[in-house]
Amino acid sequence: MTERVVTACLLIIGNEILSGRTQDKNLAYLASRLNEWGIRLTEARVIPDVADTIVSTLNEVRGNFDYVFTTGGIGPTHDDITSECVARAFGLPHGEHPEARAIMEAYYPPGQLNEARLRMTKTPEGAQLIENPISKAPGFQVENVFVLAGVPAVMQVMVDGLKNRLHGGAPVKSRSVKVALPEGKVAAGLGALQEQYPSVEIGSYPYHDQTGYGTRLVLRGVDEDVLATVAAQLDALIMALGASGEWDTPP
Amino acid sequence: MTERVVTACLLIIGNEILSGRTQDKNLAYLASRLNEWGIRLTEARVIPDVADTIVSTLNEVRGNFDYVFTTGGIGPTHDDITSECVARAFGLPHGEHPEARAIMEAYYPPGQLNEARLRMTKTPEGAQLIENPISKAPGFQVENVFVLAGVPAVMQVMVDGLKNRLHGGAPVKSRSVKVALPEGKVAAGLGALQEQYPSVEIGSYPYHDQTGYGTRLVLRGVDEDVLATVAAQLDALIMALGASGEWDTPP
Repeated sequence: MTERVVTACLLIIGNEILSGRTQDKNLAYLASRLNEWGIRLTEARVIPDVADTIVSTLNEVRGNFDYVFTTGGIGPTHDDITSECVARAFGLPHGEHPEARAIMEAYYPPGQLNEARLRMTKTPEGAQLIENPISKAPGFQVENVFVLAGVPAVMQVMVDGLKNRLHGGAPVKSRSVKVALPEGKVAAGLGALQEQYPSVEIGSYPYHDQTGYGTRLVLRGVDEDVLATVAAQLDALIMALGASGEWDTPP
Repeated sequence: MTERVVTACLLIIGNEILSGRTQDKNLAYLASRLNEWGIRLTEARVIPDVADTIVSTLNEVRGNFDYVFTTGGIGPTHDDITSECVARAFGLPHGEHPEARAIMEAYYPPGQLNEARLRMTKTPEGAQLIENPISKAPGFQVENVFVLAGVPAVMQVMVDGLKNRLHGGAPVKSRSVKVALPEGKVAAGLGALQEQYPSVEIGSYPYHDQTGYGTRLVLRGVDEDVLATVAAQLDALIMALGASGEWDTPP
């Protein structure tokens, strides 16, 4: 493929992920959606709730990727500092967003929109909101940076709502096959196949499940026809090694 | 605490994580073990199987953290390039490690140690091996960089075996409490408590489970007495808000 790959980076902001207490679920969701939209997640970083780290990381990555997504740190408590940090990174004032204020006023009963909750109406000046149909407090976009919630259910609806704001290339298709052979036996033929078809990314991952040990092979690429050719050749390689492959989509 | 914090960075190497196909499980395991050993995981990055990216990322992080761990990319297939990349990052020759060769020869039946599997006997020159009691192919250490398998079961035994090679500070202790209050109601009191006790890291995370919506509050610090004091004050705050906290360890 000669088309430029559209790239994305995810910043997972949160001490709770780095402490091992909470398992991130947002990376896999974002990656799958971006794949469908022809955008390649090419890096992710997990960083702590430390303002200087968030600001410097944002400024490092926002120039290197087409899109940057952040998750976490946009709630009402003292450890929610993502919004201020995005403002600092862009050198923008940080203040109340009139639309966000209106959304929150409509949502909370009179007297319940306290100072902590009002924190969630603040964005960098000029930010475009990202709708949150679940708990209302919005995410926002500044240039190529998209600031999302950390709670997976909320993050997911926010991502879904971005479909028309993001512009990708050709979607990446994939095929995978499970084979009861150790990696060391398929490696030689697989390496040769990869060399012959550089436009298809061939991944090899050992597994161990109820059925025993084996290897899962994954083909990824944007051209269906090339993918089908590689799948057929891989299937022949597996049979030549005396095994049979269990494909997600038969070649 | 005046003691210097011992820091670590994890590099998760693998297209399969970035594509969303595979869920990383190694970060949480490493973080928990390091916590016990008084080492703080302060950053993690997920990067693709691209040699230049691996080399430049390694060289960026190995000077910034006390310890760097990598997972993935040390198997026998063409996409396993971590070992060569570590050699390149350190400017070391990459070749057969005599001990690794001996381990692999003892493990495989005659004739089974093929060219692909011999790849797993290569390390940067002078590397110290990390034992793999499960599938034998070892990890290795070069200076402050520890190269581990990506398969969680293997990665875990490798980490466990490092206990005496890593030198941390005071272990981080934590306490957590689940409370059926929205974050917006505890935020003000919580922020004041955080300001009063800067040595304890207070995290606030909304949850939604079978019992409904609420907030999980996490206290982390190295001093048990200070932690107990903050826990008692937090419990009083929760009660003053008309709720009752469900503690992992009662304050």
